Amino acid sequence: MEAIPISFMRVIEGSLFTSTSPTAVSYQDHQLVCIDNSGYIERIIARTEPDFESVRQAASRSDTLVTLAADQYILPGFIDLHIHAPQWPNAGLALDRPLNEWLDTYTFPLEAKYADPAFAKRIYDALVSRLLSNGTTTALFFGTIHNPANLELAKACIRHGQRGFIGKVAMDNPKETPTYYQDASAQVAVEQTEQFIQQLSDLNRTTDLKQTPVITPRFVPSCTPASLQGLGDLAKKYDLPVQSHCSESDWENGFALEHYHMRDADVLDRYGLLTDKAVMAHGTLLNEQDYQLFKTRQVAIAHCPISNVYFGNAVLPVKRILHQQLKMGLGTDISGGYSPSLYHNIRQAVMSSRMLQDGVDNQLAADHRGVANSAISAKTAFYMATFGGAESLHLKTGKIAPGYLADLQIVQLSTHIIPPDKDDDIFDALLYQTEEQDIVQVYVQGKQTKGEL
Amino acid sequence: MEAIPISFMRVIEGSLFTSTSPTAVSYQDHQLVCIDNSGYIERIIARTEPDFESVRQAASRSDTLVTLAADQYILPGFIDLHIHAPQWPNAGLALDRPLNEWLDTYTFPLEAKYADPAFAKRIYDALVSRLLSNGTTTALFFGTIHNPANLELAKACIRHGQRGFIGKVAMDNPKETPTYYQDASAQVAVEQTEQFIQQLSDLNRTTDLKQTPVITPRFVPSCTPASLQGLGDLAKKYDLPVQSHCSESDWENGFALEHYHMRDADVLDRYGLLTDKAVMAHGTLLNEQDYQLFKTRQVAIAHCPISNVYFGNAVLPVKRILHQQLKMGLGTDISGGYSPSLYHNIRQAVMSSRMLQDGVDNQLAADHRGVANSAISAKTAFYMATFGGAESLHLKTGKIAPGYLADLQIVQLSTHIIPPDKDDDIFDALLYQTEEQDIVQVYVQGKQTKGEL
Ligand SMILES: [Zn+2]
Ligand SMILES: [Zn+2]
Repeated sequence: MEAIPISFMRVIEGSLFTSTSPTAVSYQDHQLVCIDNSGYIERIIARTEPDFESVRQAASRSDTLVTLAADQYILPGFIDLHIHAPQWPNAGLALDRPLNEWLDTYTFPLEAKYADPAFAKRIYDALVSRLLSNGTTTALFFGTIHNPANLELAKACIRHGQRGFIGKVAMDNPKETPTYYQDASAQVAVEQTEQFIQQLSDLNRTTDLKQTPVITPRFVPSCTPASLQGLGDLAKKYDLPVQSHCSESDWENGFALEHYHMRDADVLDRYGLLTDKAVMAHGTLLNEQDYQLFKTRQVAIAHCPISNVYFGNAVLPVKRILHQQLKMGLGTDISGGYSPSLYHNIRQAVMSSRMLQDGVDNQLAADHRGVANSAISAKTAFYMATFGGAESLHLKTGKIAPGYLADLQIVQLSTHIIPPDKDDDIFDALLYQTEEQDIVQVYVQGKQTKGEL
Repeated sequence: MEAIPISFMRVIEGSLFTSTSPTAVSYQDHQLVCIDNSGYIERIIARTEPDFESVRQAASRSDTLVTLAADQYILPGFIDLHIHAPQWPNAGLALDRPLNEWLDTYTFPLEAKYADPAFAKRIYDALVSRLLSNGTTTALFFGTIHNPANLELAKACIRHGQRGFIGKVAMDNPKETPTYYQDASAQVAVEQTEQFIQQLSDLNRTTDLKQTPVITPRFVPSCTPASLQGLGDLAKKYDLPVQSHCSESDWENGFALEHYHMRDADVLDRYGLLTDKAVMAHGTLLNEQDYQLFKTRQVAIAHCPISNVYFGNAVLPVKRILHQQLKMGLGTDISGGYSPSLYHNIRQAVMSSRMLQDGVDNQLAADHRGVANSAISAKTAFYMATFGGAESLHLKTGKIAPGYLADLQIVQLSTHIIPPDKDDDIFDALLYQTEEQDIVQVYVQGKQTKGEL
């Protein structure tokens, strides 16, 4: 057979797993994943197809072929749909403190340090490379109130090769923010948000890996109605993503009820912050009425299962919410959650859902202990960490298929001395056993960001 | 000052954390941990003591000094108080199957393969070295029904340097065990248990790292009254530890009620299996009466927080049980739990306790959702993984103090770019961030089993 002229940027030869629905995963044995020069997957060629061998040989000749070992697998890169970049130095610290003490003694003082861009550069450099090393190819970040620091985060993403969505945090309510760390007024909060939009737009002229500014009211309690209104206007003017926290805990849920006599979600909606590009973190205390509103507005939820254990006061009923066809992804919520790994969050998402189903209190009879039909599978958690997150950000990624961005991770199934022989078992072993050391290569838009070539 | 003549096998220079109670941890900055020739800690010398420098220099001259880097810490080695060694190849597999399917399709067929001692050798070699690599210096193992395989496990422990407690599993109830994997009769179950006791006794003549045989009825359902009686007699005759599962799930708890019209714990007690050397795994469905019985008999509980999420049907109320001063340690329960790491189980122990306290069902009002005063701290989980496990096995270990075995792990706080400055924060960071790659050295009885010298 004659060689067909081809010019792929890279061809990865190996077996892959990719979600096909919130409950199903497709296994494709021994494929060629062919990546074009813009970083998109152009073709996927099965071994049984006629031009498999010619494409493989051409790639080998042009030195663009990456052939995986038998115990390595290709997965979509993960999308961290909620993470506070500045809180990375505190990951795992003081999680047994009450929320107000955790914020006042640990979180706000740390975030205030990002007034120093050199400090920001040091931390963000370390964080972004650590996230990539854990297989996270896209992240939706809360920054701080400081634009020079937020720009450092964007530059770190570009330098290391991660797709960042970055928000200048707006927090101007003097009653709910410390004097040493707050926007001086609603006007300042809104103006600096707009300034950051312009700054990122300038920065993006220098790179193919676009960084996206995100409208970011910290949450209802820390903002004034004026800043919420101004931010809603900006979201509309620039057609940009929005991120915030919504009904994360009994306290937050209660704050809106007390101060606005409205649901937390309704407050955000009043100011135009619930759009089809909005991502609301946690939502453990959302109710059916909120789900309906989210569905109407096409709002996505960032499920943060580890963080919710510490600050969420309940388990997000993922199965119920996915059944209503709401968009949902997974977030680490550093440092409300301690782990930078979405693998750890996938596991906790499954475990929390099982605990919701079985219940927790052994004093109750089994049939009164939990909420029937709540358990999700590892496949559903994987869907959230990949396609669910991508859909929430309107990205063509999170799936290994032609036309999708080549955001990929190569994972080694090194922990099993006897490799499982069924696809489902290999998948389970990958999701339950992978640690950072097992992620051997990571690609963003086809460009390698972890591992030796 | 004049050098004092000393001859420590090894002196480790560094800062350490060790439990002082179920809720408190002591931090000791810059110490010399001096290990004698039998592998016990003989002295711990603070930097302020007069002979610190002379001991340090003598150790340095005799090439027995190990000096830690500033971001490394000494912790007691962990004790895995419940693990099924043969199930290691299935870790993380099929956890969303119902218990009976998981046992019949995954667990029993795998355990049956250990009829082949060569297979056993291969798996046990890999498992024991992986456990040590995760900081586990002592483990209480379920083996299989096959003594040649169980001996391979003991030999692997000796070869790699782990302190093993190993049980030949007894399971002779034909109604609850598969024909291809069961003891042929109660007599066979008991005789082979006694045979294994003799075999280990012979093997122990060849090593300083003693391996302990453990009387191991799999659980009440899989044994006949005759084998339970015979095993209880052996426990008494040889004064040996006993291990089993007790009230792990609604199903198991219900089995004893249905077939014996007694509590699961009372069945074990009737046959002399609840001794002060007994360790009962899980116990999520134990009630107050059972706790009282355990207290009277001085029985220990092996808490397996990850496994309990999948098979336990409720959260073990750790705080309530510790309040009653029962002995309790931590177990991975491979492969009911997916992780070989007690760090992961420490985190889940904390998280499960918080979920018990807060509750899980967001449809319930906050004050009816959970069980007040249930949350434990990372310090309590650490206590269980160290001193609690040691106490359960009547071992002088799990604590860094003179007179205790030098079972130690050296952990690198590598993930934090800004090292925390408070002891409590360092401790939290160590417990929440340590992964296998961060455990740089492991010692059992003073002998190094992981890391380059
Ligand atoms: Zn957050
Ligand atoms: Zn078990």
